[in-house]
Amino acid sequence: MKLIYSKKYTQYTRLELMEKVSAQMSKKRFTHVLGVEETAIKLAQMNNGDVEKASIAALVHDYAKERADEEMIAFIHSHHLDEELIIFGNNIWHGIIGAELIKLELGIHDEEILNAVRKHTTGDMVMSLLDKIIYVADYIEPNRRFPLVEQARKIAFENLNEAVKFETKHTLEYLIKQEALIYPKTITTYNTWVATVNRHLNK
Amino acid sequence: MKLIYSKKYTQYTRLELMEKVSAQMSKKRFTHVLGVEETAIKLAQMNNGDVEKASIAALVHDYAKERADEEMIAFIHSHHLDEELIIFGNNIWHGIIGAELIKLELGIHDEEILNAVRKHTTGDMVMSLLDKIIYVADYIEPNRRFPLVEQARKIAFENLNEAVKFETKHTLEYLIKQEALIYPKTITTYNTWVATVNRHLNK
Repeated sequence: MKLIYSKKYTQYTRLELMEKVSAQMSKKRFTHVLGVEETAIKLAQMNNGDVEKASIAALVHDYAKERADEEMIAFIHSHHLDEELIIFGNNIWHGIIGAELIKLELGIHDEEILNAVRKHTTGDMVMSLLDKIIYVADYIEPNRRFPLVEQARKIAFENLNEAVKFETKHTLEYLIKQEALIYPKTITTYNTWVATVNRHLNK
Repeated sequence: MKLIYSKKYTQYTRLELMEKVSAQMSKKRFTHVLGVEETAIKLAQMNNGDVEKASIAALVHDYAKERADEEMIAFIHSHHLDEELIIFGNNIWHGIIGAELIKLELGIHDEEILNAVRKHTTGDMVMSLLDKIIYVADYIEPNRRFPLVEQARKIAFENLNEAVKFETKHTLEYLIKQEALIYPKTITTYNTWVATVNRHLNK
């Protein structure tokens, strides 16, 4: 890929940022990250989004996914985040705390990029185009394998809002089947994007 | 049935209370109410619960289910309840507001009975024996017809906590399949009773 960064959002070139990210995770996860980037760029192009921001947000979205639980819990305490976060584990922490670590350690301060990282696991009531791109790209990138992924890909390349709805509904069904904890914001996202009564909000 | 009320919780006899409740709803719903009462009494007997309270709470649990939306919304405003309630409709209102109407109109002030009415649709993180009895009886009473009801009945007559778990999980799955709004407390109930990580809480 020949994407040249403008230096507006990060001091690093794309290759340098890839190296920084790669140093934080397993090869398997880094392959996933590159898949998310490829998909996010495609979705940005198709939806008149910012391709550079899509690339950066995709590259950093899982930056904190492999941090030790102890470090993340210490961060929750030292930064006075809501202690209710603790029971939800790194599936939830890595987006919310990840955005802070990206700021501190990578010097990325663009709030649109940071919000896309914050929201990439749970979605939110209000989602920017970049939020939707990262949320959906994370779900459908080429390395993903699960029964509904082909259907999710088809929807994503037709209608990004419908893809947010599809992903939110089926992620929630999956969590319940697994009897996994559900983070309250996931229900806010569901009530906005899936439930029919108030789907007109925020669109 | 020959259940004689003690007059500790209501001034009415059981028959008088049945008449009061019956006047508030269709014949079909009243048949459901009597089914919930029969089941609640059985569950109370099996779990060393208070049979009289189980009967009263069951009889009044749907007292407000057929009130006009306008009256319920006016109640939310006049009693300064959270306006976020409004979008959730009478499925959620009739328990929360129903408890207040039961106090005002039927003179029932026992907080254990009122809480069982408040929690009968959504459950809660903390549930008393009576809360569980009414929540489960409402789901499995003899007039209920849905694919999992026989399994739910079997579980309920073996282990009330497992029945709370089963009902919460499958109600949530049903709501998502219907793309219905989910009241946030339903997720609190799910995270406590279904999700495995913190299931040790409140039991």
